[in-house]
Amino acid sequence: MRTPDPDPNERDDDGTPRDPLGASFGAGGRPLGEGGFGSPTPDAAANPGWLTDVELAEARRRLPMLYVEALPVRTDGIGTVTEVGILLRATPLGAMTRTLVSGRVRYGETVRDALFRHVENDLGPMAFPMLPPQPAPFTVAEYFPIPGVSPFHDDRQHAVSLAFVVPVTGTCEPRQDALEVTWLKPEEAASDALSAEMEGGRGTLVRLALASVGALR
Amino acid sequence: MRTPDPDPNERDDDGTPRDPLGASFGAGGRPLGEGGFGSPTPDAAANPGWLTDVELAEARRRLPMLYVEALPVRTDGIGTVTEVGILLRATPLGAMTRTLVSGRVRYGETVRDALFRHVENDLGPMAFPMLPPQPAPFTVAEYFPIPGVSPFHDDRQHAVSLAFVVPVTGTCEPRQDALEVTWLKPEEAASDALSAEMEGGRGTLVRLALASVGALR
Amino acid sequence: MRTPDPDPNERDDDGTPRDPLGASFGAGGRPLGEGGFGSPTPDAAANPGWLTDVELAEARRRLPMLYVEALPVRTDGIGTVTEVGILLRATPLGAMTRTLVSGRVRYGETVRDALFRHVENDLGPMAFPMLPPQPAPFTVAEYFPIPGVSPFHDDRQHAVSLAFVVPVTGTCEPRQDALEVTWLKPEEAASDALSAEMEGGRGTLVRLALASVGALR
Amino acid sequence: MRTPDPDPNERDDDGTPRDPLGASFGAGGRPLGEGGFGSPTPDAAANPGWLTDVELAEARRRLPMLYVEALPVRTDGIGTVTEVGILLRATPLGAMTRTLVSGRVRYGETVRDALFRHVENDLGPMAFPMLPPQPAPFTVAEYFPIPGVSPFHDDRQHAVSLAFVVPVTGTCEPRQDALEVTWLKPEEAASDALSAEMEGGRGTLVRLALASVGALR
Repeated sequence: MRTPDPDPNERDDDGTPRDPLGASFGAGGRPLGEGGFGSPTPDAAANPGWLTDVELAEARRRLPMLYVEALPVRTDGIGTVTEVGILLRATPLGAMTRTLVSGRVRYGETVRDALFRHVENDLGPMAFPMLPPQPAPFTVAEYFPIPGVSPFHDDRQHAVSLAFVVPVTGTCEPRQDALEVTWLKPEEAASDALSAEMEGGRGTLVRLALASVGALR
Repeated sequence: MRTPDPDPNERDDDGTPRDPLGASFGAGGRPLGEGGFGSPTPDAAANPGWLTDVELAEARRRLPMLYVEALPVRTDGIGTVTEVGILLRATPLGAMTRTLVSGRVRYGETVRDALFRHVENDLGPMAFPMLPPQPAPFTVAEYFPIPGVSPFHDDRQHAVSLAFVVPVTGTCEPRQDALEVTWLKPEEAASDALSAEMEGGRGTLVRLALASVGALR
Repeated sequence: MRTPDPDPNERDDDGTPRDPLGASFGAGGRPLGEGGFGSPTPDAAANPGWLTDVELAEARRRLPMLYVEALPVRTDGIGTVTEVGILLRATPLGAMTRTLVSGRVRYGETVRDALFRHVENDLGPMAFPMLPPQPAPFTVAEYFPIPGVSPFHDDRQHAVSLAFVVPVTGTCEPRQDALEVTWLKPEEAASDALSAEMEGGRGTLVRLALASVGALR
Repeated sequence: MRTPDPDPNERDDDGTPRDPLGASFGAGGRPLGEGGFGSPTPDAAANPGWLTDVELAEARRRLPMLYVEALPVRTDGIGTVTEVGILLRATPLGAMTRTLVSGRVRYGETVRDALFRHVENDLGPMAFPMLPPQPAPFTVAEYFPIPGVSPFHDDRQHAVSLAFVVPVTGTCEPRQDALEVTWLKPEEAASDALSAEMEGGRGTLVRLALASVGALR
């Protein structure tokens, strides 16, 4: 259930049908951020306040959800962006849509960990992303369930997304769920044609990302 | 119940004991973002899925909460920061703590609206803040309930805060709840002495803010 | 002789036919940065190493020149950009071109002082600009005398320009030299039509500026 | 002759005693930016306007010089800065000073090319720097010959420096001229002790760099 993922039933935020357990902080001070909330689990017995799926769905209608998004890029030897990676995916209805890497930040998880997790999830373990050292996103994309409030739209929720440009140096092997990465020249990625194919207004987000790296004309 | 506000009972996120109703989108396409969620209200009868206070409190233990924070500054005629505003507040136990302007982003509310609302709430209607036109914060501060995960700590919740520097041009008249604004020189604001007085690690946030405006030595 | 000013003879960097004297540091530690270099002046007698106009012109063919540029914007009460100001100017040949506020940084002058000086020079003393407190530009525009090296072109020189978005709150009264400010909606300012009218590739710079404030679609 | 290099005679901007020739644009549209200006060269015969060393030195007293600077960092697998590299160098007088990677941008050279060239020059060909894709620096450091105008000082010139954080992934082997890279923890790099050892006020620049990557406390 993620902003860039309009098909919550087809592809869960975790890549599994449901997140099996609550967040916990891992050893070494780094929050694992595993799982989210919601489903009845073994923990739930010990945690009577645990939200059921229904309660969670309600919470999501009452709170802005925090997301991260990434535009994967390839750079030349001195850091100039030469190509950008756009994800292609089949919707449950069989249509093809284009989107960015993205997903929810879990309870207890750092933004950086969430960004890495979603990049790896969408691009595979051999992508070798170079996450930017800066914590500040190049923009904040706000998705509202009602179109027109902002350039971005998500009929499932109010999501606020921290957006980053992430150079990848390895090989991208998207997961099995009909996801594919298309590498485009910056001018192709900025085109109206591509923009029209992107879901939720993300054509705008691609352009803002390109602008942040000086690759928009 | 806000990150910079350790006293949820003393000062609610809305400046009222409880938010009376759910978010709605206002006329003109701009989300009012009024109220949050939680309390039984007249709406609740018509909205059987409404979260009770208990359910909300649970949700907040399962989801990262989105916040905005602002360091108010005074600038000279050409934009150089000359002073920064630090809030002083008495805790319920009578201790004085220092903090920044901050508060939660409500469901359906834009980040910009939330930022304006909290600045006005904390500095009064005559502060005349000049919100930055850029949507990107100077940093993202992550507050975890377990100390040491990040420089920032909030034992009530996992909060992710978009932090901005906001020049104010008018007169600051904090609200009645023992809040006071102290204007400090940048070097005073960056001092270890001030940092030690600030709650939740916000001394670090002040320094990052000063660095973003080139006012840290 | 400035990047945005293709008519060095018509409009000098200082708004005067020639800068009469070398830079000096003013009282109070703030460099006045008055004047530049070049013309024989009373000082020149006392400063035998003074560059003549010819020598200066040579220096400019040997060194990158440092510039500042500004996109003036109008914002609503909460900082959202509603309009951008584009300068219209007649060239010596009678053609109309569009450009941004810009000009050279003088020896001994701070970037901030230069930015203020050029905004005031191009928009008049009643523009009341709010210079951003941050020293970092939203982008660095590199103008080369040979087209195609970058999106930006200046056949007179290699200029490196620090570009800022500057909200103005007053009334713009451009100076007498046929300069006019046109206020455009962000979507108009980002259009191909406007871009084609702008000199030196500054249509791209307008788009990057709009992207930095989230006003590009 | 570079801002971070107080010893122009010991180490030239090009690593050679003098730059032998003027800038030219290389094949493929990329400016080579080789050499600067100044010395009599074979070209000079064909270019009667060529500046002599004396004329150049004069130009540098009349124009702000454009520089780039870099703080090399090491990051963990998800982009968090773990160490920063500080250069150690012996001055001609035998004292040790600390500085950053830096150097001048040549005529016809892009900022990105200059940044890469100076990183390679100071850290060696096996450093494998990952230059940031963004053209905007994290700050602009202004060095004035008169102390106190800004936090930065260079008694040789007025230099304006675009400063970047550059992750390096390889092995740093500084060149032969007594240069050494010391890797420090962020808290060590931000200390007053280190700051006092750094030339020209660059202790402040290190702190601003650390702040930009969220590594300053």
